[in-house]
Amino acid sequence: MIRPVLARALLLAALALPGVARATEVTTGQLDNGMQVVVIEDHRAPVVVHMVWYRSGSADEPAGESGVAHFLEHLLFKATDTMAAGELSATVAANGGSDNAFTNHDYTAYYQRVAADRLELMMRMESDRMNNLRLTQSDIDTERQVILEERNQRTENSAGALAREQMMAAQYLNHRYGVPVIGWRHEMESLTLGDALDFYDLYYSPNNAILVVAGDVEPQAVMDLARRYYGVIPAEDNLPPRERGQEPPQLAERRLIFVDARVSNPYLVRSYLAPERDHGAQQEAAALVYLAELLGGSPFTSALGVALQIDSQTAVRTSAANDGASLDDTTFELVVVPSEGVSLDEGEAALDAVLADFLATGPDAAQMERIRTQLRAGEIYALDNVQNLAERYGAALTQGLEVEDVQAWPDILQSVTADQVRAAAARVLDRRQSVTLWVAASQEEAR
Amino acid sequence: MIRPVLARALLLAALALPGVARATEVTTGQLDNGMQVVVIEDHRAPVVVHMVWYRSGSADEPAGESGVAHFLEHLLFKATDTMAAGELSATVAANGGSDNAFTNHDYTAYYQRVAADRLELMMRMESDRMNNLRLTQSDIDTERQVILEERNQRTENSAGALAREQMMAAQYLNHRYGVPVIGWRHEMESLTLGDALDFYDLYYSPNNAILVVAGDVEPQAVMDLARRYYGVIPAEDNLPPRERGQEPPQLAERRLIFVDARVSNPYLVRSYLAPERDHGAQQEAAALVYLAELLGGSPFTSALGVALQIDSQTAVRTSAANDGASLDDTTFELVVVPSEGVSLDEGEAALDAVLADFLATGPDAAQMERIRTQLRAGEIYALDNVQNLAERYGAALTQGLEVEDVQAWPDILQSVTADQVRAAAARVLDRRQSVTLWVAASQEEAR
Repeated sequence: MIRPVLARALLLAALALPGVARATEVTTGQLDNGMQVVVIEDHRAPVVVHMVWYRSGSADEPAGESGVAHFLEHLLFKATDTMAAGELSATVAANGGSDNAFTNHDYTAYYQRVAADRLELMMRMESDRMNNLRLTQSDIDTERQVILEERNQRTENSAGALAREQMMAAQYLNHRYGVPVIGWRHEMESLTLGDALDFYDLYYSPNNAILVVAGDVEPQAVMDLARRYYGVIPAEDNLPPRERGQEPPQLAERRLIFVDARVSNPYLVRSYLAPERDHGAQQEAAALVYLAELLGGSPFTSALGVALQIDSQTAVRTSAANDGASLDDTTFELVVVPSEGVSLDEGEAALDAVLADFLATGPDAAQMERIRTQLRAGEIYALDNVQNLAERYGAALTQGLEVEDVQAWPDILQSVTADQVRAAAARVLDRRQSVTLWVAASQEEAR
Repeated sequence: MIRPVLARALLLAALALPGVARATEVTTGQLDNGMQVVVIEDHRAPVVVHMVWYRSGSADEPAGESGVAHFLEHLLFKATDTMAAGELSATVAANGGSDNAFTNHDYTAYYQRVAADRLELMMRMESDRMNNLRLTQSDIDTERQVILEERNQRTENSAGALAREQMMAAQYLNHRYGVPVIGWRHEMESLTLGDALDFYDLYYSPNNAILVVAGDVEPQAVMDLARRYYGVIPAEDNLPPRERGQEPPQLAERRLIFVDARVSNPYLVRSYLAPERDHGAQQEAAALVYLAELLGGSPFTSALGVALQIDSQTAVRTSAANDGASLDDTTFELVVVPSEGVSLDEGEAALDAVLADFLATGPDAAQMERIRTQLRAGEIYALDNVQNLAERYGAALTQGLEVEDVQAWPDILQSVTADQVRAAAARVLDRRQSVTLWVAASQEEAR
């Protein structure tokens, strides 16, 4: 499963909300072989979410092998020395649970959600495939077709997805975030058994992994089981330092025009390079959560919504999004879908007028408080979902953050000031670091 | 020395002209360790050009280590077990010769031009530094400053060079041709002794090298010397297959606006992805040599020159260039410098009108013949320079061509038809695979 990088700002906020860490007991530990363990206690229901996160995603792939991280995610459901292909998922289902996996630029993760007393069984199977996968050429041939078909469905069949792929490639001049998680088709077609095994041997190692167990469990019992199943797997001595090519200064704004007859409504996206949450330095990313809401949250209150959708009716839809959770520089995005009869050029001029106005006047105090309250309210939803909690820690720990950063985030989010938002906006809304994408059905519409 | 990728079309044609292979005896061989040898006899003067070409340039660098190929080129002039730092160049100079080196995306090459009877001395020294370089931390610290200063002078001090760097990064979505040969500054700053040695140990190996000797020499004598000096160096068993990440389909035209107060005249560049000369398939690249001349050759005869510089006087300069010599997909570029009072937008509209007209009417027969004759005439110049001949073979063999391709090229160039030029133009002048760069001193000028 490909995990989309960007979600609406509010959703993201809900995934990372105040109070959670305080209301829930989080215990951390480390096995002798370097594997990190995070236990999140939640005794409301007798269920457990068992996840293993690897600090390796598509941005860690060797050049020319795009898609191998996600390919391997599929292959992890094949046979091991002691399990048949598909046996893990079948066992989970037979026990009334569910399981899946997902890959992003920064991580690959596997999880099962089962009755709490099935945790040991899950660990036995998950630890088995960390070390004992037995891939065959036939696995490769079959599953390569599957991921190519997945690319067909998700990307080739969607003008918007293709356009976004080209946009991201233009947004990043050097970093592999410009390469799609699913991979470039021509590179996917030539992925080999050797490519998959090289990635597996290097990265599927306890010292590159994080075990997250959330639910009706006791930390000591989890640690004991973890030691028994994961603790016996040897560390990988050759694990390289996690250094990906970083961006050079972006000095020239870029514009893309994507024409595809399948586009029903022309629209435009403006994407800016943006700072992500860093260990001990999350303030600017927190300000961007507000900025996204202020500019493109509700159509009835956000700057773009009010100006373009309500007042001038130049747009039928506007939005803003940013994803602060990322190991390296992320993006801040604005979308405008112009009303019928309004050109992309006019839509973009309207967008830029709103941005200029916002940069000049700064955020409205009442809006700041409304968003602050909204973010605090999100806590309730976040607490309610033990899987979201588990994902929050897993993602953070594979993206350069520590447990204390996850726990500090709600308070940081609550502490954001109007001045910080204004400063973040001034820094991030720099056209030289931006890409503007126009998507239209014809050259005539692309103006 | 950074070897620029693009030169004016005519210059390139002159570097690869008809009849040369026939007028000059070329002998090839291979040592047991895999090193290729090319001997070009030219007995007009008692001089010899001795070159070693490595099939590794900046596009072969590991991600995150941009500039290491060129850095290593500098470091090759440091000490070996038996030579002091600088001794090789000093010895060449003391013998009345000259020497240098250059790096490109596809290769790194070293050469000396000396009296023919000094060939053995050159081989002794050049083979020594292929295998026995002894780099120190102090070499790294010093030479890193030198390449950073080189970047300052060539790139940071030049708005045009910075703009071109951003353009190339947008032209290539996936391939490392989008990374500058000199490197991104932030990556150059962190290049280490280990990075340099890793690149050296892997790529500076006889099975990754081509010896080209041109001048007043006998092939058998050259082979004997090559065996003695280069033949004793062990082959590198771990030399990887030369696969760089290739481009996905380019589906969205890109536009860049680069604003820098140092720009004196605003100008625009349109760059298209273009096919390069491939082994056994050079016809389309040959047609592009004509296309560049037809569109942007002489201001008095080319389509852009006549329309923009003479007739409408909308431009003070126009040009077209392409570099068919490249291992992977290259670019075809058009430049327009609008006249005073003509906006970039107007200049680009004038450019596009000329392209549309050319695509509709195709090349003028008289112009085709003029260029054909011009290309044939270039032979004289090419033959006259033994170093150019040597470079032609060295570059070709590091860029995926064989000796027979170099020898076939003049006839292929002469055989190009108007239909082939029209077909190549229709394929290459596809906006979806293009980048349009505007360079101006201010936002006001960039319109």
